[in-house]
Amino acid sequence: MNDQAWMERALTAAQRGGLATWQNPQVGAVLVKDDHLLAVGYHHRYGDYHAERDALSQVTPDQARGGTLYVTLEPCNHSGKQPPCSHLIVDYGIKRVVVGQLDPHQIVAGKGVQYLRDHGIQVTIGVLEQEARAINPHYNFFFTHQRPWIALKQAVTLDGKVALGNGERTAITNQAVYDWVHQERAHYQAILVGSQTVLTDNPTLGTTAKLEHQPWRVIMDRRGRLFEQAHLKIWQATVYPTLVYTETPTSLAFPGVEIKQLAEVTPKTVVDDLAQQGLQSLYVEGGPQIHNAFYQADLWDESITYLSPKLIGGQGVTAFSGPEPGRLMELVNVEVQKLGSDLRIRGERKCLPD
Amino acid sequence: MNDQAWMERALTAAQRGGLATWQNPQVGAVLVKDDHLLAVGYHHRYGDYHAERDALSQVTPDQARGGTLYVTLEPCNHSGKQPPCSHLIVDYGIKRVVVGQLDPHQIVAGKGVQYLRDHGIQVTIGVLEQEARAINPHYNFFFTHQRPWIALKQAVTLDGKVALGNGERTAITNQAVYDWVHQERAHYQAILVGSQTVLTDNPTLGTTAKLEHQPWRVIMDRRGRLFEQAHLKIWQATVYPTLVYTETPTSLAFPGVEIKQLAEVTPKTVVDDLAQQGLQSLYVEGGPQIHNAFYQADLWDESITYLSPKLIGGQGVTAFSGPEPGRLMELVNVEVQKLGSDLRIRGERKCLPD
Repeated sequence: MNDQAWMERALTAAQRGGLATWQNPQVGAVLVKDDHLLAVGYHHRYGDYHAERDALSQVTPDQARGGTLYVTLEPCNHSGKQPPCSHLIVDYGIKRVVVGQLDPHQIVAGKGVQYLRDHGIQVTIGVLEQEARAINPHYNFFFTHQRPWIALKQAVTLDGKVALGNGERTAITNQAVYDWVHQERAHYQAILVGSQTVLTDNPTLGTTAKLEHQPWRVIMDRRGRLFEQAHLKIWQATVYPTLVYTETPTSLAFPGVEIKQLAEVTPKTVVDDLAQQGLQSLYVEGGPQIHNAFYQADLWDESITYLSPKLIGGQGVTAFSGPEPGRLMELVNVEVQKLGSDLRIRGERKCLPD
Repeated sequence: MNDQAWMERALTAAQRGGLATWQNPQVGAVLVKDDHLLAVGYHHRYGDYHAERDALSQVTPDQARGGTLYVTLEPCNHSGKQPPCSHLIVDYGIKRVVVGQLDPHQIVAGKGVQYLRDHGIQVTIGVLEQEARAINPHYNFFFTHQRPWIALKQAVTLDGKVALGNGERTAITNQAVYDWVHQERAHYQAILVGSQTVLTDNPTLGTTAKLEHQPWRVIMDRRGRLFEQAHLKIWQATVYPTLVYTETPTSLAFPGVEIKQLAEVTPKTVVDDLAQQGLQSLYVEGGPQIHNAFYQADLWDESITYLSPKLIGGQGVTAFSGPEPGRLMELVNVEVQKLGSDLRIRGERKCLPD
């Protein structure tokens, strides 16, 4: 088998980690010697062995010596939750390492490969690189752009309405969409809404996925409108870590909820703070003013629209609206999918940040 | 072959008439004797022979005598552009007539069948009735409800915007949609827009279909805002008959354009007047205030949305908007179709008029 074929095995292994790897990337590793497969490893879950260690732990250094290790992401060279994989690879006497993609994480970023080469190991980089990148889109985006990947998710009628009236909870989409969204949220590390959405819908913002690390709930509540509303589900944070951004001083405290006062609560200040905390992806559920604020600030990468074949008309609340002039922006890589009677339309911003 | 099978032949023949039958229904007729096909006829175009006459003209009365005539729509019993078909059927000595659907047109409505029975002809009604009705949906609707079938057609972004700003011409959809709409218009007998759309887009409202009878262009211009704008394409009416409804007195005259003053120009008064003139279908192209006015007046039967994967946000002009409270209405019989990067989403009002 050639390098591509072995790397494909490693990519398949990587994806077994799934959402359990949380803020770590999904990584797979395959150990080969004399064109024979010796071991397949992957990163099982956040905090566990890295893929390289998972593979090498299945053999003795004697067995591994002179072998080739295929790994989807550059081996780390630092001590985090685990000792550096680069050292382990050298200790095991691996002769050649084939890497899918370099690690954009500043703490690795070429240093792992450099260490291997400094120790006489032959390194090939970029085999199935695109495929390797594609399994960790948010991770790669975050460490390249130093901010989370941002999805703007909405549910609208054919005339672009999200509710019958301000403050009126309106079920636009069907049960299939409801179920889908509860799965989809699990693919993002934080779910964000504005205070108006919390007041109108009193949402849980939960997932139905079994996860050790649930997405954080992030609320923008500039004026502290939610502080006196103890019945709101966002204040019950036993399952979902919750972060409320406000400009309003308060001594309120709820277990599991962090109330964070900023001088200004804007998409920019919130995203900067979330980036500081290492959150790699953000799913913005609205409402329309919040969507518009992110849109106008160019802080979005993906648009997910759940469209239901209904009309509202009149004074119905309209999607993406605010005081700024409109700007026509096209989506690319558009996918359309039927969910019962409704549609899911997903696309990416045409000009993503460099 | 049985009745169903012969009626299917007649239905297939009927549809050869296509759009050329204009305000007449598409009708097919098949003459059968001793289980042998003698003739197939159909209504070729508005003003031409009816289907029954088209079929019978292919044989002599001697050949036809004792035969069975399958006809998709009840034979007429009145003298219009053609002498009554019921008389001809009797004259040809037809023994049995099988009818797809009774004619909802008041001038026929059972009288054709009555005449045949009075003359000793055996009549069977309702063979493939649903299929027969389906080939003339607008005709059937018009003569059942005494008003045109009304489609509300719009082009929107994912956030329900139709333009960047008021008065700003904005291309939302792609060339495939443009081409499709120019064909689609030909399936309606009138195309309606408001004065704001005329001022913003200066549209031709034309079709690319080769038709003897082009759809009428209907403009709602209550305040006569278009009167001083001689450059507008709607005033050039050599191809498309044009009807402007206004509340504003004027002595303006353009060839091919009728300016009609009403005490009040509303969806109701306009639709009533179009019904008076026998227009069986109306394609309302907006803008959003016009769409909303028809929506709020319950004067619509079909919604056609061309959706482009774009966003506008901010002060973009929103679809279906007006001062009335929003009302959530669901569409049924929804069809979704891709047109290049855009979508066509068509559905019918859940509760059509009785």
